[in-house]
Amino acid sequence: MTPSEIANELVAGCKVGAEEANLAKLYADNAVSVEARDGGTGRVAVGLEAIRAKHAWWAENATMHALEVEGPFPHGDDRFAVIFRLDATMFGARSQMTEVGVYTAEDGKIVREEFFYG
Amino acid sequence: MTPSEIANELVAGCKVGAEEANLAKLYADNAVSVEARDGGTGRVAVGLEAIRAKHAWWAENATMHALEVEGPFPHGDDRFAVIFRLDATMFGARSQMTEVGVYTAEDGKIVREEFFYG
Repeated sequence: MTPSEIANELVAGCKVGAEEANLAKLYADNAVSVEARDGGTGRVAVGLEAIRAKHAWWAENATMHALEVEGPFPHGDDRFAVIFRLDATMFGARSQMTEVGVYTAEDGKIVREEFFYG
Repeated sequence: MTPSEIANELVAGCKVGAEEANLAKLYADNAVSVEARDGGTGRVAVGLEAIRAKHAWWAENATMHALEVEGPFPHGDDRFAVIFRLDATMFGARSQMTEVGVYTAEDGKIVREEFFYG
């Protein structure tokens, strides 16, 4: 897949909640995921299994009320950004937040994702 | 200035159109600006003077009707993203576009900006 195809498929999958399928199809085994800050368990997850564990933690601890996904916004041949607007309840508190994901593709797979949020 | 202060001041300046003041105060002399794609003059501008030339070209060729600036969205201690929504007329055609800027700060100055757009 070209980076543009990867970007479009990632966004399409996020819009319908197909995150597990996205990970299986679009991510390299050694992909790295980097959070904006250390929420207590480190900022960096290395490898697809560690990224799956993050998704599982999120699914267990957060209730999503709405998710808007905007993009992709390409940068050159290997990177793209996606804007996420979340409405979620976590540990009893409901909040809305916007975050930007920046993705790097290499050899037809996503090798890095970086999240920007306040 | 801390990266967080730089980010807040950049966004505040963009909101009021104080781009020249932003460049003078917040950017390193050797800052690099990278466009999403090559619009005919290359993607990469190296150095503050080259970045000023880009701004001058834009001011000459585009009429801005509206600009919304959202952020900053931090990533670690040295990077942040900003979302721009532009409504502009260029070469007779009016269009709306969204772009994401990703900034890197070092030693109290912005040393790199990267723009993501479709």
